[in-house]
Amino acid sequence: MARQLAVADLVARAREGDPRSVARLISMVEDDSPRLREVAAALAPFTGRAQVVGLTGSPGVGKSTSTSALVGALRARGSRVGVLAVDPSSPFSGGALLGDRVRMQEHAVDGGVFIRSMATRGHLGGLAGATPQALRVLDAAGCDIVLVETVGVGQSEIEVVSMADTTVVLLAPGMGDGIQAAKAGILEIADVFVVNKADRDGADQTVRDLRYMLSLGPRRERDDSVWKPPIVKTIAAKGQGISDVLDELDRHREWMDRTGERDRRRQARAETEIEAIALAQLRARIGDIRGGGTLPELAKKVVAGELDPYGAADDLVESLASG
Amino acid sequence: MARQLAVADLVARAREGDPRSVARLISMVEDDSPRLREVAAALAPFTGRAQVVGLTGSPGVGKSTSTSALVGALRARGSRVGVLAVDPSSPFSGGALLGDRVRMQEHAVDGGVFIRSMATRGHLGGLAGATPQALRVLDAAGCDIVLVETVGVGQSEIEVVSMADTTVVLLAPGMGDGIQAAKAGILEIADVFVVNKADRDGADQTVRDLRYMLSLGPRRERDDSVWKPPIVKTIAAKGQGISDVLDELDRHREWMDRTGERDRRRQARAETEIEAIALAQLRARIGDIRGGGTLPELAKKVVAGELDPYGAADDLVESLASG
Repeated sequence: MARQLAVADLVARAREGDPRSVARLISMVEDDSPRLREVAAALAPFTGRAQVVGLTGSPGVGKSTSTSALVGALRARGSRVGVLAVDPSSPFSGGALLGDRVRMQEHAVDGGVFIRSMATRGHLGGLAGATPQALRVLDAAGCDIVLVETVGVGQSEIEVVSMADTTVVLLAPGMGDGIQAAKAGILEIADVFVVNKADRDGADQTVRDLRYMLSLGPRRERDDSVWKPPIVKTIAAKGQGISDVLDELDRHREWMDRTGERDRRRQARAETEIEAIALAQLRARIGDIRGGGTLPELAKKVVAGELDPYGAADDLVESLASG
Repeated sequence: MARQLAVADLVARAREGDPRSVARLISMVEDDSPRLREVAAALAPFTGRAQVVGLTGSPGVGKSTSTSALVGALRARGSRVGVLAVDPSSPFSGGALLGDRVRMQEHAVDGGVFIRSMATRGHLGGLAGATPQALRVLDAAGCDIVLVETVGVGQSEIEVVSMADTTVVLLAPGMGDGIQAAKAGILEIADVFVVNKADRDGADQTVRDLRYMLSLGPRRERDDSVWKPPIVKTIAAKGQGISDVLDELDRHREWMDRTGERDRRRQARAETEIEAIALAQLRARIGDIRGGGTLPELAKKVVAGELDPYGAADDLVESLASG
């Protein structure tokens, strides 16, 4: 009982914006602790408010700088902001102390910002399993917006990005090859394109390349039900274009609300998440099979010819389900 | 009802030694057909009699030649013999028409021999899933001995060999590197070592190498409960030493009966088999999750904050079990 009160207490404090309670709750879901389920259940009623924004792009496009600039602009608006850095090499991860980290540190002492780097340690479902739980903590903590920063556009990044309401793909001039390589992937997942380092040579060419690629996709002019990903030019290091990005995030949120797209995405996201947890649970139970006494008994009957192995497997699955 | 009678009929004919019924039953278990379970149930009461002998070894040791020679010697004794070739590149597989295949063809027209190459097509559990079912067919068909021929000593071969009562590992002179590489693996799985091509240079050295390796293992002289794998020299192409191999197979069977080792192995084998089938069943059910209506309903509750994803996963697993 003491434990349950403690979790409820932590959640109550997190909802008031206490950063230490937020940090502790994230640690609990990240470590797949015995209290994970308790935490998840306690958070459920307070979730669903935050706009989850995924930020992804190849290394070198200025992702951390952009995240930092977005946090600053959101704070200036009075929004409560959460940041989840799911890149182990991120400056937020407590690893290398880069300039960006110092910049983020300013925000870290600001009561309206929660910054967290995600580790995969211990959690049954890995990063893809821990991230949605951490998102729920920040959501319940009253964040208006949660930025999920990942690196690259590989499979695991796409998994994480699939947890977002709005996905921002960052590009930089002179990385045309990267665009080609990631073409199919980023066209599918991007709601907003940001061409950062727009003062560099080739920025306009990158924008043209993108426009061309987008023109190849499905196109229905004047059809409000289709979202056409805008392309925003920024110089994040100077804060230029950042408010344009925020405007597009707002516009996307309003579009999702109007069309019901947000509900569809959240529904799909919840299905994926539940399925992943159920799968991990079943795997864990299968691992426990040999420990129990059911399997040897069934095997004995098969050896004696009293039962065939398929019938025995049926009985075993039955016993797992009730176990 | 007609279907059930047909399977019962096939089993009855197979028990009388009808090769076409045997072949059809193996095809049914191999293809994971809807009648697989029916066949497995119908076979169960008639299984457990045959001695299952696994034969394995690297390519080039003369495995097919040895199998063919063993079949000939067993037939000369009046034994009913089954052969399962689980190597897709085996001459028995219907692929390349090698000399060995021609030799085996002689046996194929002999009513006391059933020869079958195993394909993995369709079966949920792959080769490791299909082989024990095919073994049961040959067992029920009244085979005194079933030879399971595999290639190499890789993981899948060890899986297949683990279905045997007695495992024969074949070696040939001049393949010392192979012995070293496979050392740990073959010492654990071999009940009988055969050094084939014993008329070649280095045969005695191969025997000495093996003796040395075996001497490094656990050794309890005069302890009847421990089986010391014998080493038999053969020239399979000339039929030399083959009867010595059969003698060792008999000796091993008698030892297993005396010590209860056969029951222990069969118990372990049945456990592994049931577990694999149960695992395949659970995986298939997980694949069905998205098709049903349970997951969307649960996801809706999670999105609405009425349920947390762990509670939803519990419910989903519950529904799988009863489904």
